[in-house]
Amino acid sequence: ELDRDRFVDLLNEQSAIGETADGGLHRLALSADDRAARDWFREHLEDAGLEVRVDEFGNTFGRRAGTDPDASPVLLGSHLDSQPNGGIYDGALGVVAALEFVLTLNDEGIETTHPIEVVNWTNEEGSRFQPAMQGSGVWAGAHDLETEYEKTDTDGVTLREELERIGYRGDVPAEPQETYESYLELHVEQGPKLEAAGSDVGVVTGIVGFTWGKLTFVGNPDHSGPTPMDHRSDALVAAADTIQAVRRIGNSLGAETVGTVGSIDVSPNSVNIIPGKVTMTWGFRDSDDAVVQRAYEMVLAEANDAASREGVELESEETMRAESVDFADRCIEAVQSAADDLEYDSLQLGSGAGHDATHLASVTDTGMVFAVSEDGKSHSPAEYTSWEDCYAAANTLANAALTLAHE
Amino acid sequence: ELDRDRFVDLLNEQSAIGETADGGLHRLALSADDRAARDWFREHLEDAGLEVRVDEFGNTFGRRAGTDPDASPVLLGSHLDSQPNGGIYDGALGVVAALEFVLTLNDEGIETTHPIEVVNWTNEEGSRFQPAMQGSGVWAGAHDLETEYEKTDTDGVTLREELERIGYRGDVPAEPQETYESYLELHVEQGPKLEAAGSDVGVVTGIVGFTWGKLTFVGNPDHSGPTPMDHRSDALVAAADTIQAVRRIGNSLGAETVGTVGSIDVSPNSVNIIPGKVTMTWGFRDSDDAVVQRAYEMVLAEANDAASREGVELESEETMRAESVDFADRCIEAVQSAADDLEYDSLQLGSGAGHDATHLASVTDTGMVFAVSEDGKSHSPAEYTSWEDCYAAANTLANAALTLAHE
Ligand SMILES: NC(=O)NCCC(=O)O
Ligand SMILES: NC(=O)NCCC(=O)O
Repeated sequence: ELDRDRFVDLLNEQSAIGETADGGLHRLALSADDRAARDWFREHLEDAGLEVRVDEFGNTFGRRAGTDPDASPVLLGSHLDSQPNGGIYDGALGVVAALEFVLTLNDEGIETTHPIEVVNWTNEEGSRFQPAMQGSGVWAGAHDLETEYEKTDTDGVTLREELERIGYRGDVPAEPQETYESYLELHVEQGPKLEAAGSDVGVVTGIVGFTWGKLTFVGNPDHSGPTPMDHRSDALVAAADTIQAVRRIGNSLGAETVGTVGSIDVSPNSVNIIPGKVTMTWGFRDSDDAVVQRAYEMVLAEANDAASREGVELESEETMRAESVDFADRCIEAVQSAADDLEYDSLQLGSGAGHDATHLASVTDTGMVFAVSEDGKSHSPAEYTSWEDCYAAANTLANAALTLAHE
Repeated sequence: ELDRDRFVDLLNEQSAIGETADGGLHRLALSADDRAARDWFREHLEDAGLEVRVDEFGNTFGRRAGTDPDASPVLLGSHLDSQPNGGIYDGALGVVAALEFVLTLNDEGIETTHPIEVVNWTNEEGSRFQPAMQGSGVWAGAHDLETEYEKTDTDGVTLREELERIGYRGDVPAEPQETYESYLELHVEQGPKLEAAGSDVGVVTGIVGFTWGKLTFVGNPDHSGPTPMDHRSDALVAAADTIQAVRRIGNSLGAETVGTVGSIDVSPNSVNIIPGKVTMTWGFRDSDDAVVQRAYEMVLAEANDAASREGVELESEETMRAESVDFADRCIEAVQSAADDLEYDSLQLGSGAGHDATHLASVTDTGMVFAVSEDGKSHSPAEYTSWEDCYAAANTLANAALTLAHE
């Protein structure tokens, strides 16, 4: 049993770093607040007597030794970065639960056969720098380190510069240093299924695949008054057509497909100038990778059609693609047994959000625990999970990890 | 005949203040560059021996005395502010032409019966602060001074603060100090008609009416992954529907109606967050005020429909309305005769852009001269008028003004 008061204190301590006036969290990857949260995490790891290492990509690990010098570690963790004005549970809950688990092991003098490692992955959110799940993706070998170093935010600042500025470009190579026993991650569901089923905790069976992209429409900026309608190449009209196409594809492709345009930037963005340039993102997800591929093809075709109807140029780039993932049976079972032993009502479900576990699944046996999200809300200050539900998920994680670490 | 070399020098001097790398001009109303352009203008007025006054709203006048102490002044001018990354002719050409006219009168020792006043109006563009034609609108009594002082830019800075910061909140009441003989304004056409007709110069007969507005859609920011399509209230989807409605209305309402969405701002604007809030502008113009009113009603109805389809809240505000204007016959004739006397090929046409002349027409007899716009381009660095065409329009303005000032 975890120490509930300490667990809540730890959650509250971290959510004070980058909190917003409306109770949300604004802690973009590699920002000053992200640094402060990382420092907070490192201090707690050190206080707990863990051996800390920071890799070249800022992924930060704390290791608690096992009794068997040859045993591979069980890895537990998530991420401390947040969305712009996001919620306080997304990511942080999983890091804090893993930390609380080793503190409890220390308190109770429990030794495990396998070492336990606790990790904070760099830039899971993919909002400031793309792709999402970037640190775990580099570490798992899905992305090239140098390519990701050169990624820029909207101000043109590179990720490498920011890692160095905040002092989290470590020495350890960003790749597995040994074989892992398994990886477990606790996260808020961010969707409505657990609440709808009346469950206490979720046993996650896998993660949807996804594709994200960026479109740039370039038309002619011109005066909105004396320029006749048939003389216009309006980049925003082409973008609006594409926003509607994304909605249509999301609605119609598969039963669980989702499609979203989350961001758009217009230049010059003046009431009386026909928009000359529009950059927008799009994204699709589905548990069927063939559906994801079909959505990808459809949105590019629709964007091309919109661009040629309007007589604007189009540049297109896929910024992220992740195959769907099925978790290892033995991890699903470990999580399910832990929930059952603790007498929690549980539901097996797939994840509609991406997680660092997506990439970990290519390195080691992987599983996840979901905490209930009230009203399914996430990536918003309205994101909410009761302390009760946070605690249920954390205990499930702890018990599942203990099983795997003893094995 | 104006001094062509000096005229070109004056144009070049001013366009260096706030020039952009791509040959455009970025001189937003009440910015540091606008101040520098105003200082430049004031210096030239003083050097020319004109009596300078700055009114409470920053409108800046230079007066050259007439021979008849009781005669009302002929007013000539335009504006020195620009669009974001706009062109170098829009506004500035009219101010420089008026200035060059009085310099030529000085050189040639010509005295006029009526005084001549040269004016630079504050914030004609309406891009940083709305509405457009704001300084002339206040001066003409179309807007309340205090209300306009409180207008803010997107950073929340008030117009009053900015006027004070740049030192252009003068003492003179922002209203006509006496009766005016007439007002003439030279401006680039900003549309394709003169070029298409092969004309040297345009004789403007009036200005379209227009309506501008701002819409704010407020939905639920949420995660773009685990949030099912039928759980979404996406502010950007409602905005995209409205962008297309504006296009449809512009295309179909009247033969000359134009409709434009020039700017849109999304929050939180992240690739994997369903947009929670979108602010967008729209605008319609037509020479028939009933059509303008109809467009206004249609866009509000369409925005409301889009908002309710998507389940988002809508706030709506009309930020500008200007009735269409017919210029005084005697001003149209003065411009036409001047063009004929100079043996320029001319075309009579209406203006599809708003001008300070819109408001001046409610104060005194008003007319305008248009210079040819290559390819009709404006509000863009690609805006271009040859020196030949600038000079033709300036000479037409000068000759028409001389006729009116002698009368
Ligand atoms: N879990 C989560 O919010 N991850 C961010 C990447 C995504 O959009 O799924
Ligand atoms: N002439 C001009 O560009 N005026 C700005 C206001 C408008 O959009 O018409």
